[in-house]
Amino acid sequence: MTQFFSVTCGVCAPQGFYADGLNCGLRPGDQPDLAFIRSEIPCDVAATFTANRFQAAPLLHAKERLGQKSQGVIINAKNANAMTAQAGIEAVQAVLERVPFENPLMSSTGVIGVPLPVEKIVAGIERFDFSAQNPDAAAQAILTTDRWDKQIAFEVETDSGRFTIGAMAKGAGMIAPQLATMLCFVTTDAAVPQAALQQHLEESMVHSFNAISVDGDMSTNDSVFIYANGLSGVYEPEAFGEVLKRALHYLALEMVRDGEGAKKLAAFEVRGAASDQEAQKAAKMLSNSLLVKTALFGEDPNWGRLAATIGAAQVRCDPDTLSIAIGEVVLYDRGQNCMDASIEVRAAKVLAGESFKITCDLGQGEGRFVAYGCDLGYEYVQINADYRT
Amino acid sequence: MTQFFSVTCGVCAPQGFYADGLNCGLRPGDQPDLAFIRSEIPCDVAATFTANRFQAAPLLHAKERLGQKSQGVIINAKNANAMTAQAGIEAVQAVLERVPFENPLMSSTGVIGVPLPVEKIVAGIERFDFSAQNPDAAAQAILTTDRWDKQIAFEVETDSGRFTIGAMAKGAGMIAPQLATMLCFVTTDAAVPQAALQQHLEESMVHSFNAISVDGDMSTNDSVFIYANGLSGVYEPEAFGEVLKRALHYLALEMVRDGEGAKKLAAFEVRGAASDQEAQKAAKMLSNSLLVKTALFGEDPNWGRLAATIGAAQVRCDPDTLSIAIGEVVLYDRGQNCMDASIEVRAAKVLAGESFKITCDLGQGEGRFVAYGCDLGYEYVQINADYRT
Repeated sequence: MTQFFSVTCGVCAPQGFYADGLNCGLRPGDQPDLAFIRSEIPCDVAATFTANRFQAAPLLHAKERLGQKSQGVIINAKNANAMTAQAGIEAVQAVLERVPFENPLMSSTGVIGVPLPVEKIVAGIERFDFSAQNPDAAAQAILTTDRWDKQIAFEVETDSGRFTIGAMAKGAGMIAPQLATMLCFVTTDAAVPQAALQQHLEESMVHSFNAISVDGDMSTNDSVFIYANGLSGVYEPEAFGEVLKRALHYLALEMVRDGEGAKKLAAFEVRGAASDQEAQKAAKMLSNSLLVKTALFGEDPNWGRLAATIGAAQVRCDPDTLSIAIGEVVLYDRGQNCMDASIEVRAAKVLAGESFKITCDLGQGEGRFVAYGCDLGYEYVQINADYRT
Repeated sequence: MTQFFSVTCGVCAPQGFYADGLNCGLRPGDQPDLAFIRSEIPCDVAATFTANRFQAAPLLHAKERLGQKSQGVIINAKNANAMTAQAGIEAVQAVLERVPFENPLMSSTGVIGVPLPVEKIVAGIERFDFSAQNPDAAAQAILTTDRWDKQIAFEVETDSGRFTIGAMAKGAGMIAPQLATMLCFVTTDAAVPQAALQQHLEESMVHSFNAISVDGDMSTNDSVFIYANGLSGVYEPEAFGEVLKRALHYLALEMVRDGEGAKKLAAFEVRGAASDQEAQKAAKMLSNSLLVKTALFGEDPNWGRLAATIGAAQVRCDPDTLSIAIGEVVLYDRGQNCMDASIEVRAAKVLAGESFKITCDLGQGEGRFVAYGCDLGYEYVQINADYRT
């Protein structure tokens, strides 16, 4: 029997992992802007990267090394090291040469097209105590426009023993249909073979980071890394897969909740679709629609915009089989508009909450998908109209 | 030799066309909300409609009658008559029964899912003088969140005689990748056969209404109609096609300029793409990107967002062959970031204007497309957070 418990310590929760963050001068003030995660022994590593054709230098560098074991990763905020040509790759190499553990990787987030400040980062690396366990400082170092750090860890008891998974992430802006600037780092002492690790990671992406949207854009730097050092000696595939999914799902929802300027977390459940793929297409379209997002911001139970968006998704649907509900309040039921003053008040009350579900049943089959999105208000515009200054 | 002149009178410019608008109580105040266009004699009609799967009742009604000649159209604002089931179709029939000319069609824009106020509209129809020529009142009647009416007309001199094209449109919100709530009505006295009329219309859509974006959403009601009564007796295919393209292009750009809350009109030219299709894909992605739109609003020459969006478009591209310019100011040139303080000031000055071009040369081939978009600011949110009230 498998049991699992939520624990603190983020990426340092599994055996043999160390992490810290410090300010090396990439951003003003005291907030850390440089982090490391290190394992006592080299790890198997799996990763997924942005589908953007212009992948940043640290991604291009890491992709070449994914077959090899790695002992850890260096992460910086405020500079994406993207669109920086060969000089960008050389900057990654110059930084990693100074890291005192085996085959380090790098990950970056921030402004595109500006040369990486190698000297500041190297000076920061020299100040690190690589035996420190300050997961909070590491989690804070990787943030950009996030309002809070995002961490989770689970301890898992199985019949063959105990293992632990820890994780930290950053998100906020540019959260997109296909994974956008979000970074996520998972550590585990489970003894997962590299190929299985990659497969677990890809399976866990579908209903977590690939199901969320803040603004439909896609960054050059999105990356999810998982480091497995095997120190627990335990690998129970089913338990590992389930807990990894749970951890990534939690962090993905945290990202949406912390979407730039977001005040509301909406789960868009499309069911009764002709297939899961069509459900996914329609659910993502809903979570990306500007008109839906602004209606959520206005707490306006405007089911017409939901219907129009489903119609625009080019999936099999029919007004006579469609039903739409906000929370438990049915607004449109297979050809019938159910809206009246009392229904409108009840639906608006659901939308006044911080999180809620919107259900669209297409009445075409058994396909189902839940996508997560947020409202879009003035703060999103304010944050993005002048991000660089 | 063909010459053409811009004239006034909108849809009444061609011979034998009448139009007017009045307020029948669909909206408060005096602004017209109901319009007609009528031709002296029945016309050949061509039309294109939204790709939304939930097409509104007037579209479903009109599509069944497109093969037949029609003498004109009734248009109402404030109620889309969409998602109204069989009752919606019956409402269209009930309205059109009262129209005193041959085979009238209907077109509607406004809120989704609310029964059409048939009695108000019928009472309005009874007040119309169907021999009036008030194109301005008609053009104002069809507006929703538009700030100004949109009309144009051209008189065309050809070797075989003179013909005229007139048009009016409404747009503003929900202007989308594949044509979204926008309505456009074209009248002409050219003697164009019905099949040719449909082909001219579809060809004219590509670089006009299908090249613009305000928010990437797609309405249930978008329609473009063209009525040809043949009274000039003239049909010169090349001249007709050219002038129709010019008229629709003008109206499409007017829609973007009048996008909800928009202050800036941006032409996104993607050239050097591997194909015209890929250029179109990348150009439309640029015009739809929220991060690009908010950067325009902030007058921030953030070429990194432009590059990231092109990378996300999944077209053939390479950082070493890509160039990006705002107006004439080159910001990124085949692997080189050209930004410095002086370039930044010059580029920001271009963005401070009301309209400008952004050019992305992919350096991959000869493909080219220009898409048109606008900025997205606080007013967009304000307009859309509570559209219904």
